[in-house]
Amino acid sequence: MRFAKVSKDGQTGLAVDTGEDIKVLFGDSALCDLDALVAEGGNALTEAGTKVLSAGTSVAMDDLTFLPPLVKAPKIICLGLNYKDHAAEGGFQVPEFPTVFGRFNSSLIGHGAPIIKPECSDQLDYEGELIAVLGKGGKDISKEDALSHVVAYSVFNDGSIRDYQLKTPQWTVGKNFDDTGAFGPWLVTADELPAGGAGLKIETRLNGQVVQSANTSDMVFDVVDTIALLSTCFTLEVGDILVMGTPSGIGLARNPPLFMKDGDVCEVEIEKVGLLVNPIKAA
Amino acid sequence: MRFAKVSKDGQTGLAVDTGEDIKVLFGDSALCDLDALVAEGGNALTEAGTKVLSAGTSVAMDDLTFLPPLVKAPKIICLGLNYKDHAAEGGFQVPEFPTVFGRFNSSLIGHGAPIIKPECSDQLDYEGELIAVLGKGGKDISKEDALSHVVAYSVFNDGSIRDYQLKTPQWTVGKNFDDTGAFGPWLVTADELPAGGAGLKIETRLNGQVVQSANTSDMVFDVVDTIALLSTCFTLEVGDILVMGTPSGIGLARNPPLFMKDGDVCEVEIEKVGLLVNPIKAA
Repeated sequence: MRFAKVSKDGQTGLAVDTGEDIKVLFGDSALCDLDALVAEGGNALTEAGTKVLSAGTSVAMDDLTFLPPLVKAPKIICLGLNYKDHAAEGGFQVPEFPTVFGRFNSSLIGHGAPIIKPECSDQLDYEGELIAVLGKGGKDISKEDALSHVVAYSVFNDGSIRDYQLKTPQWTVGKNFDDTGAFGPWLVTADELPAGGAGLKIETRLNGQVVQSANTSDMVFDVVDTIALLSTCFTLEVGDILVMGTPSGIGLARNPPLFMKDGDVCEVEIEKVGLLVNPIKAA
Repeated sequence: MRFAKVSKDGQTGLAVDTGEDIKVLFGDSALCDLDALVAEGGNALTEAGTKVLSAGTSVAMDDLTFLPPLVKAPKIICLGLNYKDHAAEGGFQVPEFPTVFGRFNSSLIGHGAPIIKPECSDQLDYEGELIAVLGKGGKDISKEDALSHVVAYSVFNDGSIRDYQLKTPQWTVGKNFDDTGAFGPWLVTADELPAGGAGLKIETRLNGQVVQSANTSDMVFDVVDTIALLSTCFTLEVGDILVMGTPSGIGLARNPPLFMKDGDVCEVEIEKVGLLVNPIKAA
């Protein structure tokens, strides 16, 4: 199933994309809490979806405001340098282990919401990425079991303030500006996609121009590797979000550099997962 | 006031250190939830403390198990390279902006709990640090207002798995192994300490030997600077934890290196804030 957290006329709702239309059930706050449904596990998501399909009303996508599907992840684990071409364009070696930095939930926005270019920087860059959401936690998870821990996938734009990212040896600040982590629109359950979200075309477009184009199979550490390797170090928890890294083509590595500015529109599209569109707005 | 979350005989309690003894009120789960009391703000902490003082029983410190005071921080913001001598010993320049990495709540343990040396590494290192906890969120907080956002201070041992920290350009993995972030024992309200937690002796001892010794005034970016600078980038939230960086003397920078091993005992003591003691245990 394909879920979204939405609002309309001040009411929050849970949306399900049936492929033919979008059904929404408004006003049931427990039902809209995708964080809680993921945390509950078992059939909680499916049962919520069934409820929406039977009791929801059909709403046009344009009439809905999309919220980030999850906003209370215990961990948002972002992978850097996870496509060979992208590591090379940044002058980095392909790492021997996943390169990880954290995002804070406070940086997340939904589909359609503006990505904010802060006043203090002109180096707002895009990064199209695949998200995997864990439906089950664990430590020392084997490669064989790894995918049984993934409940859903989504699309992410890891908006990065490059000068702040590179001001110090750690990227965290430049990766956590308010309103820079665009997430959604859909949380797509794992059963709808190829194993590990692999083999999917991933493309980023800025004002309609293709700026990143790759395949999720080009990752250095795929979803299976990442879960197996990271869970040797720390416990993964239900609701944890893995942000799987971006392919080459980022604005910083272009000559001349291409940064996003007020009035631009950035799209990240992953085959079968969804199309995430965000306008850019100056603070 | 000086608060701790404790347990005894399977019951969780809120403890207050009166200076003469430790009073504990057990069995009131709302009262023990320091995350919620901090989030509530206002007089919630003081009222809870008053309740403990009037209705609690006196318990010897050795009879109590200490839990990490907070386990649901929206952000755990750790500063690296934040004492000049420590930046130098690592071969880093003093940064022009706070160097930040994130810790996940899943890595936290309390006073007295074992710091776990994982099987996969022999490079478990100590880092004594001051913690500042935010009692009020905000964006673009001025230096003048910064300290009004701090509700309490505490002691942290930022246990680091050095080979994993340095395996990739980002330190996050090596800073987030399970059972490596020792926190406590006390959450000390800001009114008990000098402004900004400044001017306090900070010392780390391994098996009784002093390995780090400095003053919290030696920070490159103090609590005021850190709040002002980081809040120009992202919204700080109530309950956010600032882990203010470590002085020189870490085990990695010694010749020969000094790493912690099974059976060791590590202490971090900050004047007026508290003494955090943790045994080291091999996984």
